[in-house]
Amino acid sequence: MAFPLHLDPDRLFPVDPATRDIARELYKSVADLPIISPHGHVDPQMVLDNQYFSDPAELFLTYDHYVFRLLNAAGVDLHDLGVGKAAPVDPRQAWRIFCRHWPLFDGTASGYWLTHEFVTLFGITEEPCEDNADALFDLINSRIHQDDFLPQRLLERFDIEVLATTDDPLDSLQAHHALAQVDGIHTRIIPTWRPDAYSNARKPQFVQAAAAMAASAGGEADDFAAFMRGLRASRERFIAAGAVSTDHGVSQPLAVELTDEEAGALYRRAVADGLQGADADAFEGAMLMRFAQMAVEDGLVMTVHPGVYRNHCSQAFADFGADTGHDIPVSTEYTRKMQPLLDKFGQEKDFHLVLFTIDETVYSRELAPLAGFYRSVYVGAPWWFIDEPDAIGRWRAAVTGTLGFSRTSGFIDDTRAYLSIPARHDMARRADAAFLARYVREGRLSEPAAMRAIHRLTDTQPRHVFKLG
Amino acid sequence: MAFPLHLDPDRLFPVDPATRDIARELYKSVADLPIISPHGHVDPQMVLDNQYFSDPAELFLTYDHYVFRLLNAAGVDLHDLGVGKAAPVDPRQAWRIFCRHWPLFDGTASGYWLTHEFVTLFGITEEPCEDNADALFDLINSRIHQDDFLPQRLLERFDIEVLATTDDPLDSLQAHHALAQVDGIHTRIIPTWRPDAYSNARKPQFVQAAAAMAASAGGEADDFAAFMRGLRASRERFIAAGAVSTDHGVSQPLAVELTDEEAGALYRRAVADGLQGADADAFEGAMLMRFAQMAVEDGLVMTVHPGVYRNHCSQAFADFGADTGHDIPVSTEYTRKMQPLLDKFGQEKDFHLVLFTIDETVYSRELAPLAGFYRSVYVGAPWWFIDEPDAIGRWRAAVTGTLGFSRTSGFIDDTRAYLSIPARHDMARRADAAFLARYVREGRLSEPAAMRAIHRLTDTQPRHVFKLG
Amino acid sequence: MAFPLHLDPDRLFPVDPATRDIARELYKSVADLPIISPHGHVDPQMVLDNQYFSDPAELFLTYDHYVFRLLNAAGVDLHDLGVGKAAPVDPRQAWRIFCRHWPLFDGTASGYWLTHEFVTLFGITEEPCEDNADALFDLINSRIHQDDFLPQRLLERFDIEVLATTDDPLDSLQAHHALAQVDGIHTRIIPTWRPDAYSNARKPQFVQAAAAMAASAGGEADDFAAFMRGLRASRERFIAAGAVSTDHGVSQPLAVELTDEEAGALYRRAVADGLQGADADAFEGAMLMRFAQMAVEDGLVMTVHPGVYRNHCSQAFADFGADTGHDIPVSTEYTRKMQPLLDKFGQEKDFHLVLFTIDETVYSRELAPLAGFYRSVYVGAPWWFIDEPDAIGRWRAAVTGTLGFSRTSGFIDDTRAYLSIPARHDMARRADAAFLARYVREGRLSEPAAMRAIHRLTDTQPRHVFKLG
Repeated sequence: MAFPLHLDPDRLFPVDPATRDIARELYKSVADLPIISPHGHVDPQMVLDNQYFSDPAELFLTYDHYVFRLLNAAGVDLHDLGVGKAAPVDPRQAWRIFCRHWPLFDGTASGYWLTHEFVTLFGITEEPCEDNADALFDLINSRIHQDDFLPQRLLERFDIEVLATTDDPLDSLQAHHALAQVDGIHTRIIPTWRPDAYSNARKPQFVQAAAAMAASAGGEADDFAAFMRGLRASRERFIAAGAVSTDHGVSQPLAVELTDEEAGALYRRAVADGLQGADADAFEGAMLMRFAQMAVEDGLVMTVHPGVYRNHCSQAFADFGADTGHDIPVSTEYTRKMQPLLDKFGQEKDFHLVLFTIDETVYSRELAPLAGFYRSVYVGAPWWFIDEPDAIGRWRAAVTGTLGFSRTSGFIDDTRAYLSIPARHDMARRADAAFLARYVREGRLSEPAAMRAIHRLTDTQPRHVFKLG
Repeated sequence: MAFPLHLDPDRLFPVDPATRDIARELYKSVADLPIISPHGHVDPQMVLDNQYFSDPAELFLTYDHYVFRLLNAAGVDLHDLGVGKAAPVDPRQAWRIFCRHWPLFDGTASGYWLTHEFVTLFGITEEPCEDNADALFDLINSRIHQDDFLPQRLLERFDIEVLATTDDPLDSLQAHHALAQVDGIHTRIIPTWRPDAYSNARKPQFVQAAAAMAASAGGEADDFAAFMRGLRASRERFIAAGAVSTDHGVSQPLAVELTDEEAGALYRRAVADGLQGADADAFEGAMLMRFAQMAVEDGLVMTVHPGVYRNHCSQAFADFGADTGHDIPVSTEYTRKMQPLLDKFGQEKDFHLVLFTIDETVYSRELAPLAGFYRSVYVGAPWWFIDEPDAIGRWRAAVTGTLGFSRTSGFIDDTRAYLSIPARHDMARRADAAFLARYVREGRLSEPAAMRAIHRLTDTQPRHVFKLG
Repeated sequence: MAFPLHLDPDRLFPVDPATRDIARELYKSVADLPIISPHGHVDPQMVLDNQYFSDPAELFLTYDHYVFRLLNAAGVDLHDLGVGKAAPVDPRQAWRIFCRHWPLFDGTASGYWLTHEFVTLFGITEEPCEDNADALFDLINSRIHQDDFLPQRLLERFDIEVLATTDDPLDSLQAHHALAQVDGIHTRIIPTWRPDAYSNARKPQFVQAAAAMAASAGGEADDFAAFMRGLRASRERFIAAGAVSTDHGVSQPLAVELTDEEAGALYRRAVADGLQGADADAFEGAMLMRFAQMAVEDGLVMTVHPGVYRNHCSQAFADFGADTGHDIPVSTEYTRKMQPLLDKFGQEKDFHLVLFTIDETVYSRELAPLAGFYRSVYVGAPWWFIDEPDAIGRWRAAVTGTLGFSRTSGFIDDTRAYLSIPARHDMARRADAAFLARYVREGRLSEPAAMRAIHRLTDTQPRHVFKLG
């Protein structure tokens, strides 16, 4: 017999009854606010195409590395799930594998989000298991082929006011432009400028990317000035398409002060032979400084997502490609490495710099102290592996004593899993309500002040930090 | 309409009712004990002068970098608050800025302390806001010009038994000597020997400081033996004035074993040209070893406050000077770096070495294991950015399993904010009561043992660790 | 008057009544399951000899570095307790010292375990103190000289199904073979292969150990091939004696890819002169790679316990020897350092690699992400200084969002303190019940799923991870 699947209306609230009552009231006051998603990985072409989702396996498994990485750990062959570059598979077979392994997701963030989606979107009342796998497949499959499950319809149903995608600076943004012409889309779908391919010269693809960027401004590959002009021009193009921010997935949050001559010399070596080690670090750090300078000038919000060792498992990378579950965090340092950038731009009033981390040790030690002084700095909400209720609670507890509620970024869902967007934002609102309710009960915040705080955290803060007007 | 400002008599206690009852009882038993403040930054001259505080802005804003740093982050110009070297401002205007920004302090340690002060000292019942700013200014201003708000009267009202200041080794200690002659002061006001200026040869001021120290013992600037004699003599002078401890704000807790010849050679280079990099580290580490040796000999308690990148923002340093809110922590290592010192002196019975940190990662990993073995080592209470209720709870939870209640330092307020001293000590007592109450309810401590523990933590432990008799 | 000593039947359960009820039910369902102890330091010869324990001091103080290190910190001379190489002492005198210092253990893990043992095994109802020291000594002493306190009888009474010891690869395993012949022992007592002495070439003992290993395979000391053959053969011998795992107490979890020629060259230098610094790291890292290769081939589970600075206090080492309370953790890094090993073997289906840590910072940052992807990797339960209720709770909260309940190791007691084994396993079950109950009350896990999880964590997971069939 399958176990029940149930969505507790009081989920994530504190266990103490009086505190729970307060949390419930705080949550209620923001539960129905529209979703603001200023950073994520939804494919704008998918929204533009507005096709039915193919099948439950593709929808829930194939693109969600949170999900399939744990299946891999349990011994499932990712080829059997159709992950990454793998050949197509029978989605029903893949779905059966998933259902059989459902208990793997007990207690996980993925399990929490999937439960939310299964219950709210499909009315499922039983845990997936071997016995009900086919029935669930059929149920979901039939629902997602109804019109109210078309991507554009879901935007409205999910009440997504803003949806930012993540895009290459040389992307034509044609999907965004086309989306702007589609009738009936009330969501503001905006691109995000992510130039990692143009600043990380360790990667073999750098040479080609740099050449294309220089060419976009009429220069030869080794023309650093053209390369820089191309980058600036592409930002203007993004701004014209509605972009409000840039994103930087650097290995470390390192800023390096180099003259144009020094940076240009590194650049020319990079387009000739690539760079490694300290040279690659210096070039990436010099580019981060220049991106900050551009942000000061053109007003785009700068977000930094550092500290991940990408493609840790070379066999999985060869078999399935990037973003297939084996990016692993490393310890990260901001105080010293970001000092040159903060010293130069940190006090600029209209510069917004959101520092994310997957290294929880820096919350109270570095990020809160930095964001509690510098005008430009905001502490990014927990991200990736630590984007789950307990970790969100640890984060708030780590930074609030220093920062209060005015220097954090607002929640970002950072997801490719389209259906999980409401679950994730709902989780963040509940987690904040739980945190604030404890402060009220502990006499550290009046109820009106807690109400003010939850509105700020849910609504006004993300609008302010991401300059969403 | 302004929000209410209220001081919950059960603040900081656990939310569970039965646990809260225990916490309340534990707290009650220590709530009225006198304050022992073995480390802080009150200016003894201010106490000696015993003048009325100038105005609410100076009292609450101008010198409290916890407060004005968050105002800076919100875009307030620190010149408008009269911070640091800035020219004088109209205090009423500064106060209005602060009141308008009060919600910034929601949930912060500063907000908690200010609320305590506003309610208990001034009977304020509304949150500061734009509308009541002038009325609050007038209320506070009139109160602080009454005699019972004179600094010496507050010592008594706050029931401060011991108040340690922080002083330069070449300070004349004239204020301390004069205070010792003032009738009616029942507080033991004692200096603390802080020799950072004489061990950090990276700073331009080192040359002058070292020369003055050598001269104090009749030597030329480059006479290392005289420099050392001067340091020892100044300790004797501090001891005669009641000092019980020395404080060391080193960049890292690094101890280096150098012979007198080696240390002397570095010293001579330092007074000639300053030192940088590894040489500066070696000299500072060699001095830390010598300070420990002195402590073993003369009995002064040695406290170490490492791991801060000072003056992170050069513009703010230029505009407002040091200690203006942009000192930022860095990760800190003790196990390897302190080994030479602990290996040599760690087991000395009458040597007391209190290791503080702003890097929470070392609590369970390094500090608790060290203090749970070495006779000399005590884990310092949370300090600076992590001196707030949640962080204090994390600290106790991180070290107690290894250490129990016998190897922590007792609370230190470390503050320049005179009026906040009672609020801070009260917070520490409540946080400890909350922690112990949970242990009682979880069956890990009997109620009598919890009562024993809270008395130890509040009273006997700081007296023991700081040799306060 | 002595304080009461009481064992709360609800100890470690959450304080909220409704959550506590759930925890109690979860705990009940596993409370009586047999103990599986796949990693510890019980001496098999002690079990084989099956003699009465000598006296209370030897039983509780002399070998338990958790206990005597805190007494040392309090100023007790370890010579007076009979620790390490120290001369024998009057056990009653040692016991009196311990009783007098009992409040040191308030709130500590040791205090918790000792309380459990005193109450459940001896029916003690008062805290130890100066007044009752002799009476407690006599009570315990008389009980431990009754037959039901003989080590083999306790195995049954404690319901220990599996007990793994820790052994040198050249150990004859004679005690294990003899134990296998003893009638009436129902516990599976198995050796664990711990080759640190053969891979850490920094230690002076390495030369002799390596020579003996090479000789065991018929080679001269400098014959690397014979050394490797000897290691492989000793694993076979351990497997034949029931071993299921190997343990690696490396300084850092560093894996280095070296050819046999390169490793052999380092080995020959090591047996000639020892190795230091980067060479010693490289050799140790190359051996870790080879041990992983062997594990892939012969199926032994590989456990790694890194990150400890051994013998921090040279005087204590000289006086009392190793393992006498002054091993101190250091920060530890896995993502980069283990990458070569994981890249090569991490996806092997029958390779089990359990990564332990005493550095809590790596839970959410490195270990959970690694174990949530690689088939071979499991996150070890908290160990040593962090093997206590609050730390266990932090661990679960740090890894569960990423891992759920399928990628942790199951509890290990890692103890030399024979009588503490039940107390430690009981603690782990309670801590897990407390954690799961909170998830149930927070709507993150159904009660049936929580029941499934606690059975997995207590029983099936350690059997699976340690291949206990």
